[in-house]
Amino acid sequence: MKFASDNAHGAHPAIMQALVDCNDGAVGSYGADPVTARAEAAYREVLDAPDAVVRFVATGTAANALVCAQLSPSYGRIYCHQTAHIHLDECAAPEFFSHGAKLVPIAGEQGRIAPADLAQAIRIGAAGGLNDGANAMVSITNATEWGTCYTPGDVADIAQVAHEAGLPVHMDGARLANAVAGLGCALPDLLRGVDALSFGGTKNGALAAEAVVFFDPAHAKGFDYRRKQSGHVFSKQRYLAAQMLALLQDDLWLRLAGHANACATRLGLGVQQVGGSLIAPVHANEVFARIPFEAHERARAHGATYHLWQDSPPAKDQPVAVRLVTSWATTDQDVAAFLDLMR
Amino acid sequence: MKFASDNAHGAHPAIMQALVDCNDGAVGSYGADPVTARAEAAYREVLDAPDAVVRFVATGTAANALVCAQLSPSYGRIYCHQTAHIHLDECAAPEFFSHGAKLVPIAGEQGRIAPADLAQAIRIGAAGGLNDGANAMVSITNATEWGTCYTPGDVADIAQVAHEAGLPVHMDGARLANAVAGLGCALPDLLRGVDALSFGGTKNGALAAEAVVFFDPAHAKGFDYRRKQSGHVFSKQRYLAAQMLALLQDDLWLRLAGHANACATRLGLGVQQVGGSLIAPVHANEVFARIPFEAHERARAHGATYHLWQDSPPAKDQPVAVRLVTSWATTDQDVAAFLDLMR
Amino acid sequence: MKFASDNAHGAHPAIMQALVDCNDGAVGSYGADPVTARAEAAYREVLDAPDAVVRFVATGTAANALVCAQLSPSYGRIYCHQTAHIHLDECAAPEFFSHGAKLVPIAGEQGRIAPADLAQAIRIGAAGGLNDGANAMVSITNATEWGTCYTPGDVADIAQVAHEAGLPVHMDGARLANAVAGLGCALPDLLRGVDALSFGGTKNGALAAEAVVFFDPAHAKGFDYRRKQSGHVFSKQRYLAAQMLALLQDDLWLRLAGHANACATRLGLGVQQVGGSLIAPVHANEVFARIPFEAHERARAHGATYHLWQDSPPAKDQPVAVRLVTSWATTDQDVAAFLDLMR
Amino acid sequence: MKFASDNAHGAHPAIMQALVDCNDGAVGSYGADPVTARAEAAYREVLDAPDAVVRFVATGTAANALVCAQLSPSYGRIYCHQTAHIHLDECAAPEFFSHGAKLVPIAGEQGRIAPADLAQAIRIGAAGGLNDGANAMVSITNATEWGTCYTPGDVADIAQVAHEAGLPVHMDGARLANAVAGLGCALPDLLRGVDALSFGGTKNGALAAEAVVFFDPAHAKGFDYRRKQSGHVFSKQRYLAAQMLALLQDDLWLRLAGHANACATRLGLGVQQVGGSLIAPVHANEVFARIPFEAHERARAHGATYHLWQDSPPAKDQPVAVRLVTSWATTDQDVAAFLDLMR
Repeated sequence: MKFASDNAHGAHPAIMQALVDCNDGAVGSYGADPVTARAEAAYREVLDAPDAVVRFVATGTAANALVCAQLSPSYGRIYCHQTAHIHLDECAAPEFFSHGAKLVPIAGEQGRIAPADLAQAIRIGAAGGLNDGANAMVSITNATEWGTCYTPGDVADIAQVAHEAGLPVHMDGARLANAVAGLGCALPDLLRGVDALSFGGTKNGALAAEAVVFFDPAHAKGFDYRRKQSGHVFSKQRYLAAQMLALLQDDLWLRLAGHANACATRLGLGVQQVGGSLIAPVHANEVFARIPFEAHERARAHGATYHLWQDSPPAKDQPVAVRLVTSWATTDQDVAAFLDLMR
Repeated sequence: MKFASDNAHGAHPAIMQALVDCNDGAVGSYGADPVTARAEAAYREVLDAPDAVVRFVATGTAANALVCAQLSPSYGRIYCHQTAHIHLDECAAPEFFSHGAKLVPIAGEQGRIAPADLAQAIRIGAAGGLNDGANAMVSITNATEWGTCYTPGDVADIAQVAHEAGLPVHMDGARLANAVAGLGCALPDLLRGVDALSFGGTKNGALAAEAVVFFDPAHAKGFDYRRKQSGHVFSKQRYLAAQMLALLQDDLWLRLAGHANACATRLGLGVQQVGGSLIAPVHANEVFARIPFEAHERARAHGATYHLWQDSPPAKDQPVAVRLVTSWATTDQDVAAFLDLMR
Repeated sequence: MKFASDNAHGAHPAIMQALVDCNDGAVGSYGADPVTARAEAAYREVLDAPDAVVRFVATGTAANALVCAQLSPSYGRIYCHQTAHIHLDECAAPEFFSHGAKLVPIAGEQGRIAPADLAQAIRIGAAGGLNDGANAMVSITNATEWGTCYTPGDVADIAQVAHEAGLPVHMDGARLANAVAGLGCALPDLLRGVDALSFGGTKNGALAAEAVVFFDPAHAKGFDYRRKQSGHVFSKQRYLAAQMLALLQDDLWLRLAGHANACATRLGLGVQQVGGSLIAPVHANEVFARIPFEAHERARAHGATYHLWQDSPPAKDQPVAVRLVTSWATTDQDVAAFLDLMR
Repeated sequence: MKFASDNAHGAHPAIMQALVDCNDGAVGSYGADPVTARAEAAYREVLDAPDAVVRFVATGTAANALVCAQLSPSYGRIYCHQTAHIHLDECAAPEFFSHGAKLVPIAGEQGRIAPADLAQAIRIGAAGGLNDGANAMVSITNATEWGTCYTPGDVADIAQVAHEAGLPVHMDGARLANAVAGLGCALPDLLRGVDALSFGGTKNGALAAEAVVFFDPAHAKGFDYRRKQSGHVFSKQRYLAAQMLALLQDDLWLRLAGHANACATRLGLGVQQVGGSLIAPVHANEVFARIPFEAHERARAHGATYHLWQDSPPAKDQPVAVRLVTSWATTDQDVAAFLDLMR
């Protein structure tokens, strides 16, 4: 009953095996190895993006912040949702990597930016003068920080607003697999209009691996230097590539995400059946819900772990707002046991 | 016969096994896991530094540049050897992380700074005004970029000069294991006077892991934030810790380094016996030598890989300057086969 | 009728004269001149802060951003009002100078932060982990961006909250003279608890000059290097010092600010008498008011300049929100003529 | 007899008068004023560069470092002479503004880079991999730090080498007026092949003013934001513009520089006549010479100020290496009196 985070669990055995399998022999350093070449090609293929530049890094913060530095000057304005990971949860890494870019948070229900709100924010930025900085890029998160998803249509709408203003679109896909599995859409369809992508592996069964994708090679100019300068080029790069490659094998990425999503769906339904209520719909692998205080007490007493989602401590007779995150490693027993405790 | 780099080979099986062994279950993220706690404690013990702050990162560039940013302000002067990795081979990562610190290169034979030269450089820096920046720190590399070593006495001498000027000392120990094995000294003895250490794992059999050590906790203030902001905190931090912990098991780190050193020693001796000459003495796992042109041609024809160490291309009848690097994975056969080709 | 900004007017003749007067002869460069020494001493005296470190720079953005970089690490959280100049109007200069610090905006009526809101924001920041960055400093603006003032008691309350959390307090005093004149308090009384100050000259009759003050010299460590590295040390520093010194002569700073405030007060009263209404009380030299649409049209037609304070364009039959800023150079005729147009 | 620096003297009366003359009235802030427009146009005309983007800042360090940040990414290599001001005398401002760019110093006689040496350095940089960073730009100083000049042909040769490698050329023209006056060439002729220019005013009679020029507007993209973000946009920008405009009036810039040069020439000749020797030829307003020890003692005793140009203190019976800098304010009497003391 470990629902604190999808990074609390270890790596999927197939990914661990991939590390073992690629371990033999001497190969080129810094990415000049065959595993890396194979993995980059495999991502270009699954993304249906033959010209894309694909690179692998170890952390989501690195992936996101490197993209921000690549697409925004130091004086740029980066539009994102007010709960975006890049804004709230990366210790100002985008500001550090970009040398000062301003994250401009936009409100929006359940973690999603509405196109009209984005358009207005961009207009205000464009109308400002030197004091305001220069419009630089838009970043959306899919699945969002609220466990909801942008549909392919939503993404296209956001991209249209951004592109009309001349701004590239980044998607923080730390949970992109969960979004694709949840929406049941084709991966490339969910990325129409996206210029740069952080494609998460770590939360989906890898040890530590993410892909950075630039669909237009022009956006990737100098990126390898930037990655090196920030310490994110591994000398033995094959170990990053092998993880990401294993995720594509037999659709492992989708199967793991689908499993996590299914667990979340059951949790969400279950919680409602025992008197709880959802704060946001469950589109992916996160459940934001209010659960009865007694259920919360019982769950904690039995060792369930999850984050509270409110500022003040839980109070008797008040429902408790919680975030439950499932992962590839969540078991049916975990879900059933937790729901039993809720009753 | 792969002598291009000690990062061309994969990971030692024991280290790979450690990854597998730590993989089960859900643990705290971002370093709040038992493997990390155990590994940090183990390093404090082997370093005989009960108060030290130990952290793990994935790359040597990250380790070094984070230390530089920690010990130098943006306007600081960082003294290092003119061939230091931080100066020549990290794509200006120290400048990036520190926001502009100036690396002040110091000449010195075979990769080592002479204390008197350091003292003079520090004096010049101290005599300068605002235009020159402020003296901030000293960084030495052990084993050096020339495969030589600072002895414990050498390190203490450098530290004395630095400390008299109020400057902390960093040791880039990407090949520290090779230095300890080569010198046959106790690890703590080689670190007397060192304030911050990058302790390499990757070149010594890890997949991607280095330890950063601050012997005085005051030097580590805020370091975890700095690491996070630069994307170098793994959410599943246990995988970094497990690698570094495995290196300490049964002195694996020393045994691997000792093996690599022995291979280098044999290569160095062998090269001299066939008409080559050493450019620098072989103290660790690197051989800098001039070999006969014909021997070079034969070696290359038989698939030996290594770096040339001169600006102009090899010329007939001219000895060829080469760098041969051995590693934990170099075999006796590799060495023997190479020396056969030399003859 | 130029009410667009207090930096639209030129320099007061006495300040221009001070430039002429200090022009003769060769003196030490980079601040080693007698005018600079005299000016720094004069500010220490007027601030009743014999140990303070005083430096002069040319722009308010430089003053504020340098202080932020001095008091916050790159991973720091800087608390400020959501309308603070450092947050909205300096093109992310604090982020640039500090290398990434996060400005955490706090809501508050009429440009002022309430101590309880500050305390809560600091608590949330302190409760966060690595992802949130580290609490670093508090910055308040006096007079505020809304033309209101913190009283000495208000400042002390803010400082108490900040200091209890171990955070230093910066005051952006671009219009500090107007605050002192408006409150009728002693300058040192308004700075109790303040650790670092940007003391504005440019908006108050200088050509381009601001003082940066650190009340505790420990906070100023390395500041001169930081100033130099960012290009804000003048080789002929006397010209900055002379401006700031002239402001202290015969209380020129207070007299100019008092005049500007009086003009604003009259504007504020007048606007109310002709059917307008104040959006915020007039404490200093800015009037935020809603004026009748017809009055706005007449004023514009007669060449009055000022900024609109609303997102959408003025509409017939709707009062128009405007900002009127007065300065040392605003004349009684300007005020009278404008109010005539309002009628 | 103040020969320490050309920034020790004050401002030329005509420049001070220009400040007074532009002081009246309210104008647009942040550069939207008529003086700025006039001054920018005047520089485009004198540079014979109708499309150039011209901006004014207060310090040479700001001018140079902003150009570096504009033309080099954080991972860029900036080639310059080993004695370049940007490398040795700006407290690592280029590294700070660019977020880490590496200054690659090139040796060369009397402050000048030889085209062949530049070509070789660029080749080495281009041959390097990720570890070395990316070739970004070339910066030359004219007049150089050794008081010598690049001729128009020299500049064109450097530019050809740079452009063949795809690198833009920056000229640090802190003493450009002295170079033009010394060479007797047309200003535009000395700038053939130059892409960005720091055109110095401060050392040539201004209070604090420099022009930054981008000959190709594409190089200036976003520059105003960059200037703002670093605190180098004055709200009352007219005062910078007025200084630079006054320098163009009746060729004041050339007359002042010509006077300083003539003083230097006389000093150089005189020093040789009394047993001294030149270290570098006198092309502009600096004299590098060895003077008899006794002459040095006498000069110092009579209050002459200048910098020593050697590491160890002057010794009896040893000639003393000195730098003598003349300026617009140096008088014939200063020169004569100094030479009298030499005898």
